[in-house]
Amino acid sequence: MMFKHIAFAGLGLIGGSLALSFAERGVKLSAYDLNTDTLAKAVKTGLFEYATDDIDELLSLDFDLLYICLPVRSACEFITELGRRKFTKPVTDASSTKADVAGAAKQAGITFCGGHPIAGKEVSGFTNAEAGLFKGAYHILTPLSPEFDTQALRELHEAAGMKVTIMEPEQHDRTFGLVSHLPHITAFAMVQTVSAVDIDALNYTGAGFKDFSRIAASDPRMWTDIFLENDKNMIDLIDSYIAEMERWKNAIQNSDEKAMYQMIEHAAELRRRLS
Amino acid sequence: MMFKHIAFAGLGLIGGSLALSFAERGVKLSAYDLNTDTLAKAVKTGLFEYATDDIDELLSLDFDLLYICLPVRSACEFITELGRRKFTKPVTDASSTKADVAGAAKQAGITFCGGHPIAGKEVSGFTNAEAGLFKGAYHILTPLSPEFDTQALRELHEAAGMKVTIMEPEQHDRTFGLVSHLPHITAFAMVQTVSAVDIDALNYTGAGFKDFSRIAASDPRMWTDIFLENDKNMIDLIDSYIAEMERWKNAIQNSDEKAMYQMIEHAAELRRRLS
Repeated sequence: MMFKHIAFAGLGLIGGSLALSFAERGVKLSAYDLNTDTLAKAVKTGLFEYATDDIDELLSLDFDLLYICLPVRSACEFITELGRRKFTKPVTDASSTKADVAGAAKQAGITFCGGHPIAGKEVSGFTNAEAGLFKGAYHILTPLSPEFDTQALRELHEAAGMKVTIMEPEQHDRTFGLVSHLPHITAFAMVQTVSAVDIDALNYTGAGFKDFSRIAASDPRMWTDIFLENDKNMIDLIDSYIAEMERWKNAIQNSDEKAMYQMIEHAAELRRRLS
Repeated sequence: MMFKHIAFAGLGLIGGSLALSFAERGVKLSAYDLNTDTLAKAVKTGLFEYATDDIDELLSLDFDLLYICLPVRSACEFITELGRRKFTKPVTDASSTKADVAGAAKQAGITFCGGHPIAGKEVSGFTNAEAGLFKGAYHILTPLSPEFDTQALRELHEAAGMKVTIMEPEQHDRTFGLVSHLPHITAFAMVQTVSAVDIDALNYTGAGFKDFSRIAASDPRMWTDIFLENDKNMIDLIDSYIAEMERWKNAIQNSDEKAMYQMIEHAAELRRRLS
């Protein structure tokens, strides 16, 4: 079964981009958002059947998939509310952490399969949404309810040009804690260090610093939620990362040329695999 | 006085790019490099009057500026050798740290003004050199000998489209320790952490990780030298950076939503000033 009418709860950069992309494949759209400005912009595109800031109205619509695209803690609250209303239609989400969302969905007893599209930009909001944002990107599915038609969700995202992979929610949070959440913290901390030590030095940053710190210009609401939800993994990962920084400090303190050369060679070799 | 004939000692990415850029402005070029392959490539461009791997031959040429573009410790050794030979023509360099080079030049008693062009790429060698690499970039001058015509050096680089600034060598090393050398260490440490914790997670890196870690694919010889020369600053800076990471760890451990939100907001605001 292909989904024919998808209702989005939350129409920011991620929800908006997914919606625009599905619309190109002929899917009918509806939208719920508390920001009436956003709703007005959505209506203007002519792509949405319904746009509302009223949850009762939203849930009364005849969609066949509810797609939650809210910051992760708001997503958990929304799921809890769906449970309270004994909502039965299939629900998915696009939150950046998956274990707590899965826990909320289990508790709420809804028909749920988690999801996480691996792309983004350092700008937010529906205004910046674009249909092509997720083309070629991974979409991670973290199935929960056996009655959810995961295959239909896979096909929906593959039709939008995404590479779909299945993971356990806990594995997802460890993996993306490591390759996404930790790099964000290290970039925030780097910019903060410059600010604390000598803010005028920012005048002399080159292209390397700009690329390196691009992810530091991220949305505080979204990222605070991520760190609150993925806290246990983040504490372990920060410890592992500080241990690597201590190895660097020791190598420099001991003028250990060989150790430094090998650490750089190893990191450079790994990094070159990615491009 | 404008320099009319510049001899480059070291014709890698930096030396090669500077040479190509000065050639476009009608400057006569010569080159010294121990790699005969590199010399053959330089000769092939038709831009070099002389290309040699013999230091005696190099120093007998009639150039009016010697431009050392070697990894920083080789640059110091080269300067010491110039002192031994009582070399008197003006000498500049392009090394990434400036205090130790200045110390070597003072000791050698040569006519010296240090320099550092603030640009680069994650590839090295003359093959990757390009005339436009430094267009619009800063060039930091760290004058040493009063008899050196700093104004001529300034004009040479301004003619190549660079923004020239004067600094003390020690100030240079603190500033670039902070905005260039430290970010490189944090990127190396990040890639190493992924490798140590779960190397398969590299499959799921998005555009953010790729931008963030681009500088991890850097040349081990060049960067080992930089950390050895700028060791005292780097040890202090790593300590400041680890302190910021500890602040993050504490905020996450205490679920301190407000602290996290403010730290992200502050970092994002600073980062947005750069683009």
